[in-house]
Amino acid sequence: MIDITLPDGSVKQFEKNATPMDVAKNISEGFARNVISASFNGTTVETATPLTTDGSLILYTWNNDEGKTAFWHSSAHVLAQAIEELYSGAKLTIGPAIENGFYYDVDFGEHVVSEKDFKSIETKMLEIARGKHDFKMRSATKAEALDLYKNNEFKTELIENLEDGTISFCDHSSFTDLCRGGHIPNTGIIKAVKILSVAGAYWRGDEKNPQLTRVYGISFPKQKELTAYLELLEEAKKRDHRKLGKELELFTFSRKVGQGLPLWLPKGAALRERLENFLKAAQKKAGYEMVISPHIGQKELYVTSGHYAKYGEDSFQPIHTPKADEEFLLKPMNCPHHCEIYNSAQWSYKDLPKRYAEFGTVYRYEQSGELHGLTRVRGFTQDDAHLFCTPDQLDEEFKNVIDLVLYVFGSLGFENFTAQVSVRDPENPDKYIGDIENWEKAEQAIISAATDKGLDYVVEEGEAAFYGPKLDFMVKDALGRRWQLGTIQVDYNLPERFDLTYKGSDNELHRPIMIHRAPFGSMERFIAILLEHTAGNFPLWLMPTQVVILSISEKYEKYSEKVLNLLENHEIRALVDHRNETIGKKIREAEMQKHPYMMIIGEQEEKENKITVRKHGGEDLGMISIEEFSKIVKEEINKTLKSF
Amino acid sequence: MIDITLPDGSVKQFEKNATPMDVAKNISEGFARNVISASFNGTTVETATPLTTDGSLILYTWNNDEGKTAFWHSSAHVLAQAIEELYSGAKLTIGPAIENGFYYDVDFGEHVVSEKDFKSIETKMLEIARGKHDFKMRSATKAEALDLYKNNEFKTELIENLEDGTISFCDHSSFTDLCRGGHIPNTGIIKAVKILSVAGAYWRGDEKNPQLTRVYGISFPKQKELTAYLELLEEAKKRDHRKLGKELELFTFSRKVGQGLPLWLPKGAALRERLENFLKAAQKKAGYEMVISPHIGQKELYVTSGHYAKYGEDSFQPIHTPKADEEFLLKPMNCPHHCEIYNSAQWSYKDLPKRYAEFGTVYRYEQSGELHGLTRVRGFTQDDAHLFCTPDQLDEEFKNVIDLVLYVFGSLGFENFTAQVSVRDPENPDKYIGDIENWEKAEQAIISAATDKGLDYVVEEGEAAFYGPKLDFMVKDALGRRWQLGTIQVDYNLPERFDLTYKGSDNELHRPIMIHRAPFGSMERFIAILLEHTAGNFPLWLMPTQVVILSISEKYEKYSEKVLNLLENHEIRALVDHRNETIGKKIREAEMQKHPYMMIIGEQEEKENKITVRKHGGEDLGMISIEEFSKIVKEEINKTLKSF
Repeated sequence: MIDITLPDGSVKQFEKNATPMDVAKNISEGFARNVISASFNGTTVETATPLTTDGSLILYTWNNDEGKTAFWHSSAHVLAQAIEELYSGAKLTIGPAIENGFYYDVDFGEHVVSEKDFKSIETKMLEIARGKHDFKMRSATKAEALDLYKNNEFKTELIENLEDGTISFCDHSSFTDLCRGGHIPNTGIIKAVKILSVAGAYWRGDEKNPQLTRVYGISFPKQKELTAYLELLEEAKKRDHRKLGKELELFTFSRKVGQGLPLWLPKGAALRERLENFLKAAQKKAGYEMVISPHIGQKELYVTSGHYAKYGEDSFQPIHTPKADEEFLLKPMNCPHHCEIYNSAQWSYKDLPKRYAEFGTVYRYEQSGELHGLTRVRGFTQDDAHLFCTPDQLDEEFKNVIDLVLYVFGSLGFENFTAQVSVRDPENPDKYIGDIENWEKAEQAIISAATDKGLDYVVEEGEAAFYGPKLDFMVKDALGRRWQLGTIQVDYNLPERFDLTYKGSDNELHRPIMIHRAPFGSMERFIAILLEHTAGNFPLWLMPTQVVILSISEKYEKYSEKVLNLLENHEIRALVDHRNETIGKKIREAEMQKHPYMMIIGEQEEKENKITVRKHGGEDLGMISIEEFSKIVKEEINKTLKSF
Repeated sequence: MIDITLPDGSVKQFEKNATPMDVAKNISEGFARNVISASFNGTTVETATPLTTDGSLILYTWNNDEGKTAFWHSSAHVLAQAIEELYSGAKLTIGPAIENGFYYDVDFGEHVVSEKDFKSIETKMLEIARGKHDFKMRSATKAEALDLYKNNEFKTELIENLEDGTISFCDHSSFTDLCRGGHIPNTGIIKAVKILSVAGAYWRGDEKNPQLTRVYGISFPKQKELTAYLELLEEAKKRDHRKLGKELELFTFSRKVGQGLPLWLPKGAALRERLENFLKAAQKKAGYEMVISPHIGQKELYVTSGHYAKYGEDSFQPIHTPKADEEFLLKPMNCPHHCEIYNSAQWSYKDLPKRYAEFGTVYRYEQSGELHGLTRVRGFTQDDAHLFCTPDQLDEEFKNVIDLVLYVFGSLGFENFTAQVSVRDPENPDKYIGDIENWEKAEQAIISAATDKGLDYVVEEGEAAFYGPKLDFMVKDALGRRWQLGTIQVDYNLPERFDLTYKGSDNELHRPIMIHRAPFGSMERFIAILLEHTAGNFPLWLMPTQVVILSISEKYEKYSEKVLNLLENHEIRALVDHRNETIGKKIREAEMQKHPYMMIIGEQEEKENKITVRKHGGEDLGMISIEEFSKIVKEEINKTLKSF
């Protein structure tokens, strides 16, 4: 008999050689039907692997990430079999599960596989799946393995690099593949399959190697899950911030200016300014002071801060000057500059905390292949602030920063977020600087602040920065995708490196503690996420144009201008579309531009001194007065934008 | 007889060998008493030089720059004589007139000359001056000259480099000096003398040469002029923006960040923001749109724009990146970025003008010796805008820009300004690009706009930029000093280089014309000038803090906070000084910080629900209500800040 410990801590006895599936059935037949993979003592095993010792078993279903990985890994085997059966001479290489689905890299020889082939691959995969073939692992000697793949130089290369005795295969139906394991019980569980795309990929990612075809697919245990996923993909495509950014004329890129360096068009710059003003107003109430620092600094500054050691070689290289041995760097972070601003005077404990905020544009070099719209850029503006406080003030300051971050998320319609407290790895004290006592205080301050504020948080050991623990916020967008946004960090490192001090009540010099924080993270990334979250339908308070006034013909231009003035008096941002276009075209373009309200102005409206209002999306508010409209707008704004 | 032509065009006949002074006396004895120097056919002559040919004569008085130069050049001779008489063995080198006074570089040998010696030098100079010695020029051979200075290696070196036959001396009293001429009639005109400072200076400015002592002085024809000048100097010292910037906690510099890279402290950043918001509001009304562009661009961008050819070698060097042959430059100007923003869409003539504005921070390398506070820096933020218009729109756009510039100057209290229209040098057409017709149109547009707007302007030929003519504004500050501020430029060059187009009503592509403009010039330089102009007493609307509330003791903290809230409701920016300091100290510090109004809060005020108000500078407004105070503030603001 062996003792099997389950995740809830309970221990059950089983015959030796019982399988994870036996354990599942012992728990309940219903549960066992959903179990698709397992791990034993921390190692992935098959659900049919005989267990021979005592140990801890975890059983996974489709609802676990591990279950999905096994599902998609197994689906890749089915894809490979389908390809072998459909394309004679195709050579398989590797095919892993990925975040959403799986792929297989294949040398198709003379075949060119494209979108028109997807249907037949899917059909063949489903045909195989319906055979309910079990996945069975078996060991093989290196010689056997090499013999099996004597016509496949890719697999041969993989096997050459493996140690004899560690090589295994997975068989299902008539198909076999070199494999380390981790499958679902049988192919029958795969009920829905979609080939998503093909792309070129170099063998082992090296462009000196032959080019292969990467076939991307995804599979699900239920057809309706595939349908939902494809709808999500379609919706995500519509919400792609690069597409919306173009349609809404927010930003552009120029080959001449350079990749990853966004140029903000008027509407985008206005959007940014509105967001910045919103945060500035809240920060002002929270006692922050704005500062402005240059975008470069002497190399020495970053050697002092430690950023040169961290970013130096992999980032933008130093800027030299003529006829002098000066070296400057584009700033990768604002903190060294803010430390020097702090250092411009001798503060007393009575002056603290100092809270310096700056919308600081920083530059970090990213490989061109890693650049993506506004989410991965080479120049971006952080909504940065650094708080310098005494140890006694840390707890309260940290809580106040959480309040500010939550206020920002709430005002922008991100209701769904989680938090992660990143603390030291207690087993690796050498990875961190600063004394233990301060670390404990800081971690405790973060945890107690997060708890007091009722945050839904997890604590991750070993995820702290080397200079201090931090609290990161992840939001879920309208499509359920998770994005990392704001961060709050506690830092004992820079105050030391920059020799920052304050005079305590004991008249001695002490080190302040620094808090780094950025609720948005960066303006670029935040606006990208906001675009994908809202599909461009921002909260009303944020829309650069809240109302567009469409006159039916030029006869009503004068009255339109009058309406515009009245709206401005009500602090409603409006513009008039005076172009000599049909009202139909004007409405379509206003919809495209996501203007929240449209006003149609014609004879009746002018006569009655009213306006006909239509909401974005089509809802008709009828003919109303400016005062009534103003009330509707104010009410809608007050739903999202509270005062801080 | 010879014909002498005077500046008014009149021609008079004189005996050959008549002197400029004879001509002056012929005009009037009174005028002759004021004439102190002259030029004949464009060459400086002595007032006693016999005129032997027909020619044009100009006679200068103290009121001409040329007269002042002769006065101070002559004073340098007197200084040299005084030094020779006071310090035996002192070797004279060179001693020119400068913008304000004169200096002489002297090798004093073992003597150390310092401030305590100034009085005796001044006394000796005045003693010499009172002798009314005539300045007399005479020629000398190289041999004679070398013989005279056989013990002075500096003068010897100067003479070695002169051609025999061109060497002259000037004698007065018992003193003689190597000299090219240009003196006042005699030393008696010098009535007031001040030695200002001494400084080290290398012979011929080369640090490999021996170090000399530079003695700076100034002199005047009247004692009261010296007194006024010294008062001005004293006042300028008080208004030095570097000093005020420190006192008012506006900005700082850090050795680690780098020279010439200002760090804006909270109060300075707030001041900048207020100025920027002021301009933004006016720009919005004038139809400008804000954009945002990065602080770097690929080198190619600046090769296209021509800036690399202009700034490349002498400025910050290119930024390289790891593992890729990319090269970026810190942007020296915003225009190339704005051209690329314009280029992001195909515009029609109906879309123009486009007016892109950005507070764009640019970086230009200045030698460290040239850096000065905020007026010469290495990174500065331009209040930049680029207008893209059709040729037909140029005239109106240009006038609108002038209106904006004048509005800015007026709102900031610069009433006294002049303008300069810089046009082509018609004799050097090759120096300029673009066709003649466009140049003529542009120059005409600027001149007619400047005339229409009633500007006090001068036209300077040959002062245009190579890409187009411009209009520069010079303001006179409270001390009468002139500063170059805003500029408006017309550009046919960049639209060509960036291939900018718009579709005309003829459906063909045309080139837009660009206007560059910056009313402030740069935020850094403008704030420096504003500080020196106002001594920190900005117009009330601009003061970061308009009122400081000083409570007599902590008993009145609560009422002080109530007053603060009421002021905020009246949109008056106030802060409370709650510190546990004496009321006297609080008032002194508030004066130092230039807060325009102080409110003293004590028992009586709380009881009567009023405030006791004191203006910066000491004027007492007595105990009044918040409403009365608010009215006073609004009235004062409306005096300077009109709506645009």
